[in-house]
Amino acid sequence: MTTAIVLVDVERTAMPHFGEELAAVEGVAEAMSVSGEWDFVAIVRVEETGRLSNLVSGEIGGLPGVLRTHTMVAFETFTD
Amino acid sequence: MTTAIVLVDVERTAMPHFGEELAAVEGVAEAMSVSGEWDFVAIVRVEETGRLSNLVSGEIGGLPGVLRTHTMVAFETFTD
Amino acid sequence: MTTAIVLVDVERTAMPHFGEELAAVEGVAEAMSVSGEWDFVAIVRVEETGRLSNLVSGEIGGLPGVLRTHTMVAFETFTD
Amino acid sequence: MTTAIVLVDVERTAMPHFGEELAAVEGVAEAMSVSGEWDFVAIVRVEETGRLSNLVSGEIGGLPGVLRTHTMVAFETFTD
Amino acid sequence: MTTAIVLVDVERTAMPHFGEELAAVEGVAEAMSVSGEWDFVAIVRVEETGRLSNLVSGEIGGLPGVLRTHTMVAFETFTD
Amino acid sequence: MTTAIVLVDVERTAMPHFGEELAAVEGVAEAMSVSGEWDFVAIVRVEETGRLSNLVSGEIGGLPGVLRTHTMVAFETFTD
Amino acid sequence: MTTAIVLVDVERTAMPHFGEELAAVEGVAEAMSVSGEWDFVAIVRVEETGRLSNLVSGEIGGLPGVLRTHTMVAFETFTD
Amino acid sequence: MTTAIVLVDVERTAMPHFGEELAAVEGVAEAMSVSGEWDFVAIVRVEETGRLSNLVSGEIGGLPGVLRTHTMVAFETFTD
Amino acid sequence: MTTAIVLVDVERTAMPHFGEELAAVEGVAEAMSVSGEWDFVAIVRVEETGRLSNLVSGEIGGLPGVLRTHTMVAFETFTD
Amino acid sequence: MTTAIVLVDVERTAMPHFGEELAAVEGVAEAMSVSGEWDFVAIVRVEETGRLSNLVSGEIGGLPGVLRTHTMVAFETFTD
Repeated sequence: MTTAIVLVDVERTAMPHFGEELAAVEGVAEAMSVSGEWDFVAIVRVEETGRLSNLVSGEIGGLPGVLRTHTMVAFETFTD
Repeated sequence: MTTAIVLVDVERTAMPHFGEELAAVEGVAEAMSVSGEWDFVAIVRVEETGRLSNLVSGEIGGLPGVLRTHTMVAFETFTD
Repeated sequence: MTTAIVLVDVERTAMPHFGEELAAVEGVAEAMSVSGEWDFVAIVRVEETGRLSNLVSGEIGGLPGVLRTHTMVAFETFTD
Repeated sequence: MTTAIVLVDVERTAMPHFGEELAAVEGVAEAMSVSGEWDFVAIVRVEETGRLSNLVSGEIGGLPGVLRTHTMVAFETFTD
Repeated sequence: MTTAIVLVDVERTAMPHFGEELAAVEGVAEAMSVSGEWDFVAIVRVEETGRLSNLVSGEIGGLPGVLRTHTMVAFETFTD
Repeated sequence: MTTAIVLVDVERTAMPHFGEELAAVEGVAEAMSVSGEWDFVAIVRVEETGRLSNLVSGEIGGLPGVLRTHTMVAFETFTD
Repeated sequence: MTTAIVLVDVERTAMPHFGEELAAVEGVAEAMSVSGEWDFVAIVRVEETGRLSNLVSGEIGGLPGVLRTHTMVAFETFTD
Repeated sequence: MTTAIVLVDVERTAMPHFGEELAAVEGVAEAMSVSGEWDFVAIVRVEETGRLSNLVSGEIGGLPGVLRTHTMVAFETFTD
Repeated sequence: MTTAIVLVDVERTAMPHFGEELAAVEGVAEAMSVSGEWDFVAIVRVEETGRLSNLVSGEIGGLPGVLRTHTMVAFETFTD
Repeated sequence: MTTAIVLVDVERTAMPHFGEELAAVEGVAEAMSVSGEWDFVAIVRVEETGRLSNLVSGEIGGLPGVLRTHTMVAFETFTD
């Protein structure tokens, strides 16, 4: 399984409902509105890295109001 | 409960063991080494925002080899 | 109580009245026009962190002429 | 009276006590540790702009562990 | 008296006459077209800091073709 | 005559006396400590552009504590 | 032979088919969608450096949806 | 004589003929399309610094498709 | 198989031999010295994404003189 | 023949003699000290692109006091 952190900026008008729409995308485990430079963060978990292409560009990038996304792919995950 | 995403840069020599040390910090739900500008991401969950000050500056910032951290505080979280 | 510093950039045409409109938003304790990269700073105080999502994205972000906002959430406040 | 927002970055080792030291500087009305790129924010209020030079460079800049500061001077303040 | 350095970017079409228009604003002691990232620099001298708000946002910002401004407020001035 | 705006960053320890030293350099018409990203601004006036090389790199750059300088050369100056 | 790495950003709507279109450009040895700041990377191999001008600006830059490109020219290549 | 290096970004549609148009501007000794962040570089030689204002803003900036320019003025030139 | 583009900056003294050392790392298909902001680019091919963590942080990051690395993970690759 | 523009930053102490040393490097057609973010610009002309690797990293990068270099390779040159 591959985990990725996707940072998302959206248009002002899309903000009120974007968190719920982002969380509803299959593969998005958790979405949150955040402080700082970016508007939203999505924690994504997919079966294989190749699936990220369509998930980020197609499904998240295709949500109404998305301005830009930035993906950090996890090489390895650690839990205690 | 407050969730935060903490981005961490570490010295090259600290890299091999840092993921496990980061995951072992109380309050860190998950740690991962990532592609791109930052070396590690920690998903943090604490009872209240005030606890983040000590967790980020004191405990994560105090791990050997930490160069800089950048915290995004979740205003609201969404799950499907 | 959570304190946050919200930096705001606005369109040139909105500038003359923006300071007063920003100060009138509930939760904004003080607004100011400032030197440097950003046009305005709002000092925000809310009962809980979760309230920031709607205040920043919805109410401040919804004021006419807002181009972008950047929020710094206070982990801890110190007064002498 | 002139208000200014001073952003401060400090060395990791200085973090645990810096908030209290910053708040104790005369002219600093409130200090806070914050999320994002900067470590601390100070809300400063002085009788006249000329006083900021010594306060920022001399007194805040002279605190142990200060790496860099960035000051935004308020042109005008608005309260509701 | 407060001195400030105002950096100004303007639309290409406004460039031929902008220097003269900028110099004609009351409070602008000297204007110049410059090399590098910004198009123009204005040296501004006003009776008090509060006057800068209207001068920069209203008068300079209101000149035709202004894209963005960036103000550095002088804390103290030194002449030999 | 060529005018130039020289931005200067200095070490924290040099700050208390730097303004006077900068103003004393021949060719520096006025020096000021400023808000924002840079510590000092010098307004420089020289007989010809070629003189700037030595003035900025040699004389200003040679003052104790100078970390970096950034020069904007005026193409044309406008006064009302 | 000259090798170059071309980074490409495209409009959201162009994303689904862009990888194949980029790979079909003569001189593009391999194209990929990537994590991080840029959307696509093309590995380009041409007979001589002069050919890069038309390939990058004309052919890749002329594909529908291209927003910006950034080329890194290889001085020397090493394989084991 | 004053030498300057002018970096130029142009719209994608202007690229095919821009190099020749840039080279044809009086005062431009050599133009080139380049790798990296900028699209073109012009090496400019004029009788005096004051001439750069009109050459860069008026003539180069007035060519069809120019998005932005950035000028580095030579203080001194060295040849072997 | 996962492909990644790794950008590498090295100390000046390491430059003469770094290209060969980089190409000799197992998993690096091709290395090149490049124009622009970064010194070297490595094209990396590994069996699975999880292997990138050790390859980038451990093996490439452990080469003498490495200052920083930046990895772009390919989601999908396209060849004609 | 390949032309390249090499931007160079040097230590303050190296500045007084650096222009002459840079101009004396074989392949450097002209060197100049410049305004703005970089200290020096070298106009380089070599027989083939492969020669740039050694010229920039080895010879220019090996001059005393060089902090960093940034090379823009000309794809095509235009003269009137």
